[in-house]
Amino acid sequence: MTALSPHPDRLLPSDSAAREVARRLYDDVRAAPILSPHGHVDARVLLDDEPFPDPAALFITPDHYVTRLLHAHGVPLDRLGVGVPPEERDGRAIWRLLCEHWDAFLGTPVRFWLESELAEVFGIGEQPSAESADRVYDELQARLAEPAFRPRALFERFNIEVLATTDDPADDLAAHLALREDPGFSGRVLPTFRADRYMSPDAPGWAPALAALAEASGIDTGTYAGLLDALRSRRAFFTAAGGTATDTGVLSAETTPLSDTEAERIHLGALSGEVTPAEASAYRSNLLYRFAELSVDDGLVMQLHAGVHRNTHRPTFDRFGPDTGHDLPAVGGYTLPLAPLLRDFGTAPGFHLVLFTVDESLFSREIAPLAGFYPSVYAGAPWWFLDSPAAIARYRGSITDAAGFGKTSGFIDDTRAFCSIPARHDMSRRADAAFLASLVTTHQLSEDDALAVARRLVDGQPRGVFKL
Amino acid sequence: MTALSPHPDRLLPSDSAAREVARRLYDDVRAAPILSPHGHVDARVLLDDEPFPDPAALFITPDHYVTRLLHAHGVPLDRLGVGVPPEERDGRAIWRLLCEHWDAFLGTPVRFWLESELAEVFGIGEQPSAESADRVYDELQARLAEPAFRPRALFERFNIEVLATTDDPADDLAAHLALREDPGFSGRVLPTFRADRYMSPDAPGWAPALAALAEASGIDTGTYAGLLDALRSRRAFFTAAGGTATDTGVLSAETTPLSDTEAERIHLGALSGEVTPAEASAYRSNLLYRFAELSVDDGLVMQLHAGVHRNTHRPTFDRFGPDTGHDLPAVGGYTLPLAPLLRDFGTAPGFHLVLFTVDESLFSREIAPLAGFYPSVYAGAPWWFLDSPAAIARYRGSITDAAGFGKTSGFIDDTRAFCSIPARHDMSRRADAAFLASLVTTHQLSEDDALAVARRLVDGQPRGVFKL
Amino acid sequence: MTALSPHPDRLLPSDSAAREVARRLYDDVRAAPILSPHGHVDARVLLDDEPFPDPAALFITPDHYVTRLLHAHGVPLDRLGVGVPPEERDGRAIWRLLCEHWDAFLGTPVRFWLESELAEVFGIGEQPSAESADRVYDELQARLAEPAFRPRALFERFNIEVLATTDDPADDLAAHLALREDPGFSGRVLPTFRADRYMSPDAPGWAPALAALAEASGIDTGTYAGLLDALRSRRAFFTAAGGTATDTGVLSAETTPLSDTEAERIHLGALSGEVTPAEASAYRSNLLYRFAELSVDDGLVMQLHAGVHRNTHRPTFDRFGPDTGHDLPAVGGYTLPLAPLLRDFGTAPGFHLVLFTVDESLFSREIAPLAGFYPSVYAGAPWWFLDSPAAIARYRGSITDAAGFGKTSGFIDDTRAFCSIPARHDMSRRADAAFLASLVTTHQLSEDDALAVARRLVDGQPRGVFKL
Repeated sequence: MTALSPHPDRLLPSDSAAREVARRLYDDVRAAPILSPHGHVDARVLLDDEPFPDPAALFITPDHYVTRLLHAHGVPLDRLGVGVPPEERDGRAIWRLLCEHWDAFLGTPVRFWLESELAEVFGIGEQPSAESADRVYDELQARLAEPAFRPRALFERFNIEVLATTDDPADDLAAHLALREDPGFSGRVLPTFRADRYMSPDAPGWAPALAALAEASGIDTGTYAGLLDALRSRRAFFTAAGGTATDTGVLSAETTPLSDTEAERIHLGALSGEVTPAEASAYRSNLLYRFAELSVDDGLVMQLHAGVHRNTHRPTFDRFGPDTGHDLPAVGGYTLPLAPLLRDFGTAPGFHLVLFTVDESLFSREIAPLAGFYPSVYAGAPWWFLDSPAAIARYRGSITDAAGFGKTSGFIDDTRAFCSIPARHDMSRRADAAFLASLVTTHQLSEDDALAVARRLVDGQPRGVFKL
Repeated sequence: MTALSPHPDRLLPSDSAAREVARRLYDDVRAAPILSPHGHVDARVLLDDEPFPDPAALFITPDHYVTRLLHAHGVPLDRLGVGVPPEERDGRAIWRLLCEHWDAFLGTPVRFWLESELAEVFGIGEQPSAESADRVYDELQARLAEPAFRPRALFERFNIEVLATTDDPADDLAAHLALREDPGFSGRVLPTFRADRYMSPDAPGWAPALAALAEASGIDTGTYAGLLDALRSRRAFFTAAGGTATDTGVLSAETTPLSDTEAERIHLGALSGEVTPAEASAYRSNLLYRFAELSVDDGLVMQLHAGVHRNTHRPTFDRFGPDTGHDLPAVGGYTLPLAPLLRDFGTAPGFHLVLFTVDESLFSREIAPLAGFYPSVYAGAPWWFLDSPAAIARYRGSITDAAGFGKTSGFIDDTRAFCSIPARHDMSRRADAAFLASLVTTHQLSEDDALAVARRLVDGQPRGVFKL
Repeated sequence: MTALSPHPDRLLPSDSAAREVARRLYDDVRAAPILSPHGHVDARVLLDDEPFPDPAALFITPDHYVTRLLHAHGVPLDRLGVGVPPEERDGRAIWRLLCEHWDAFLGTPVRFWLESELAEVFGIGEQPSAESADRVYDELQARLAEPAFRPRALFERFNIEVLATTDDPADDLAAHLALREDPGFSGRVLPTFRADRYMSPDAPGWAPALAALAEASGIDTGTYAGLLDALRSRRAFFTAAGGTATDTGVLSAETTPLSDTEAERIHLGALSGEVTPAEASAYRSNLLYRFAELSVDDGLVMQLHAGVHRNTHRPTFDRFGPDTGHDLPAVGGYTLPLAPLLRDFGTAPGFHLVLFTVDESLFSREIAPLAGFYPSVYAGAPWWFLDSPAAIARYRGSITDAAGFGKTSGFIDDTRAFCSIPARHDMSRRADAAFLASLVTTHQLSEDDALAVARRLVDGQPRGVFKL
């Protein structure tokens, strides 16, 4: 067996002078409370506080970071439980597949997260392998049955102060509201308003979504004006439930507004099944502009993730559905597409617009220059495909010149994997400590200043940017 | 108070072996005369040799590097004196705003430059802060009143051998000519021919520019042929005044030539107010091609900065004018757009074409491959948004493979801030020493070769590339 | 004279802790047999086993890596023997030009390769320079006359186990077949099927290529169906001759299939001289799709190099022909263009698709995400313009996050310069050792795991990916 014992200095610089600085910076922030302003954990998990079912359901099947690389190594998704009803999945067999392909993850952030989780959350002392698979599985299973490994106990142990979820505007937020009322739960679990599915009048899900929203809001969404009213009303509902932010994912960040008349015309046409791709696109651009306008009014932070081709492999989508590993980065672009939005709202007081990208060529070409001029714009943390130590270093190395540290969002974990939250924040804290230490040892920053920045990055920045 | 004492080894590698090499390389070139072949200082400042008015006017208001990040942190531009008549500005209040936001610049090149200037030019011993703001302001004010801090004294102290300015073709170059005649001034202040405003027949400023050029040259610019003649004549005038180069900034680097007939047709049409966007664009591409043709004829070095969206935030432009922080990088592109120009002039003897970019994805994909084949093409130094230690390292790391050191331009400071010139060149020398040291300690270059390269980068390259 | 003695630790990290790890990793793989699955050496060189003519013909004239940078420094190509009949070339004069411009290559991979070749293959002990040029030339000439410096002897000394060449489908592979039969030669020299010239029905060479293919295959290529049959037949012939892979170079990676009827219509039209650019493009996209389909059927590995503008400088092309230094990188793109191909074959068992790029912004945005999902897709090694230590580090730093090591192709040398093969593989082994050591010393990888990866990268990966 090979011991699993993540090194206390992992990700810190190898040069001894820099490592000592980095260690001091990291030690100062390592135990700071976790502010997680963007992620995809289900609030109900915390409300119900049921034990996690089994290691495969916890670590593998729902996590497309894990399943996609196994798939790339030839493991069919169904053998990993994807698209298979829970009762038909064989958790142990799935777990074995991960263990047999453990080396596929060498050098990846997924391996970092999983090693941290196994060792530090679950106390596993040996590396997964074909040989150790069953032993580790049994040990994990035993842990999961213990009260200390239920969601709420882990939430406390992880020292999570704020956890934002992602929710449909029509959601009743029952879990969030119940958690707020629950005297036995002191954490803040905040909904995030994600209205993507109202943006595509040419998609089959649009009309049903409108109907659900109408029911949730009590406002007729049969008109464009009604849709805006309903969205406004639900945003207020989210705010009342503790929400501080919205999130929007689009392929294109175009934000050209339409006249109300024109938007209404497209809305009505689409409801009667008459909408061209160009109209749908214009409608979408207009709504993105309107989301900013709504944020200027109600103060909800606007998060934007542009430039992802969704569901690119049709056969996989048809069989396994969305979020199964074949969303792929597009060539990004914010500067021109956002021009109408920024013209009208870029300097609006209190407006916060956090820009994320999966195209890292945008870091120095678009994100930093925008965040370095517009008071409203913040450079979102490296996200999806770029949430690794190497990419975090590139982000800091590219963003800091033109935007400094004060216009960056602070880390977001963006995860569906609850147990990976501390590991992900820990990676970010280590990577930022390493970056700051490199500035200290090259005398670009004093250690005192670096310490202040390190603290701000885990606390002041996310708290301020996301209005937590 | 926090001491301000820039470390003598700043920007050099933290690894001790590499640092020792870098220190030797840097020490060898640190005091070399400054060749500044591209910048935006006004020659009249040196001719008049008046004391600088106050710290805000020297360090803040005219420097969009400084004002843009303050603006990004919520400071309105007018509070920084931008767009405010000089007599209505409160220099001390503006200075305080910088000091209160001093931390916003942590990790940025602006902080490096300002710290170097304050400490090394002005002998300031404490960091700016809300608390120290007034003390530092008073100390700077006292210095500025001293003869040793007048422009010419600083020019000598900075050890500037050549300083190129940027000038309109219609400029009479009176300041340049007077400085040449002045026996009390030994520096070389060279005009640079920048004819951008003659390129856009659809812009309101075009016809007035033609009129000014006609007056300056005594040549009728009412025809395209006349414009070319006038430009040719003024280029000769610039050359006679010591100029060695032109500079052109365009969004697109397209260089498809037009027939004289077609160019003439557009020219005449535009003068009578009839010009389509497509015609304007074709006219612009043709002129860029003609600028190269003119350079082949008269030997003026052609500098090209493509890929900047100018004045992207209309409300700021309307209120504060150009160069106020919202010029933003575009997706760049040289290979295809320059093809017509390079087909005809790429191997022309004596032709020098220096390519700058704000899109660093071009470094390895376009700039280095072009400079690594065409005798005429040089890889311009990292510029605007990329003029930081981190970006310089990426530039060298991306350019050297295919273009070596001998096809790079040498550093350009591109600054409007006179006192930042030595700090900017110093940053470049340190960053190049660090890069070269990394090659030495990984045995890719001998230290002797590295020393020769370091010297060439501050002397032979700019002297040769810019024909100084 | 300056000694030429490449340092045994070159390219390994300067930090002593990391260097020790890197040295151990490198020492373990440095002498491993060379698997060269992609290159451009002529098999006949090994069959004939004639002495290389002279140093210029060996190192300079045929190597566009060398001639392009000399050209960029003002040396006309004909003075380097390009486009000049061999009997009219003055090898010594050409060699002197390289020596006089030796400093132009400082910091470039070409210098690394040449230094390694001169010192380690030919035992040259002094650096080339204007002063040493003749001495070194004479020494090299003397070596080339020795039996130990004939191609086969060098092949053995280089420890090449597999060498893939690049060949036209109509090639009779006589040299490959003769080498297979030759009891005196134990190496494997494998043909690679490169059918680019059948893809452009609007190019003048297309019809003659079809005719040659018809003759080679005995199949009428006057129809599209016939062309496919002929290609299928020749692929089988290549496979029988030991080939395991195809290679295709295109500007665009579009892969939209056509119906057989439509493809046939364009084929017949083109043969009678009637083909529009749009038809040619559609025909090309369809063929690229069909190449994948053929690979799924016959198991030949599909290599794809998209995004190169060929022969961009028309005057050079007209005078000196192709491969003379002015092929330039284009903005790349695989995700959308390959969608039809990947939809139908992305998960096909046994299908291997190796993607190369000259646009490194694709590493993290396209290549790694594709290789990290599709079982068929492998991230090709950094290639042309990116085959340097710095670019290899960027490749590993960008690819590993989403694709790990197991979805990378292993190094390809892609060279026409036979004597550079060991130097190029050595560079790759050193660069990978340096990268892996950085992961070890930052505790992202155990040294045992790093060692296993290092071995896999020089053996298991290329053997598996290229089916060697």
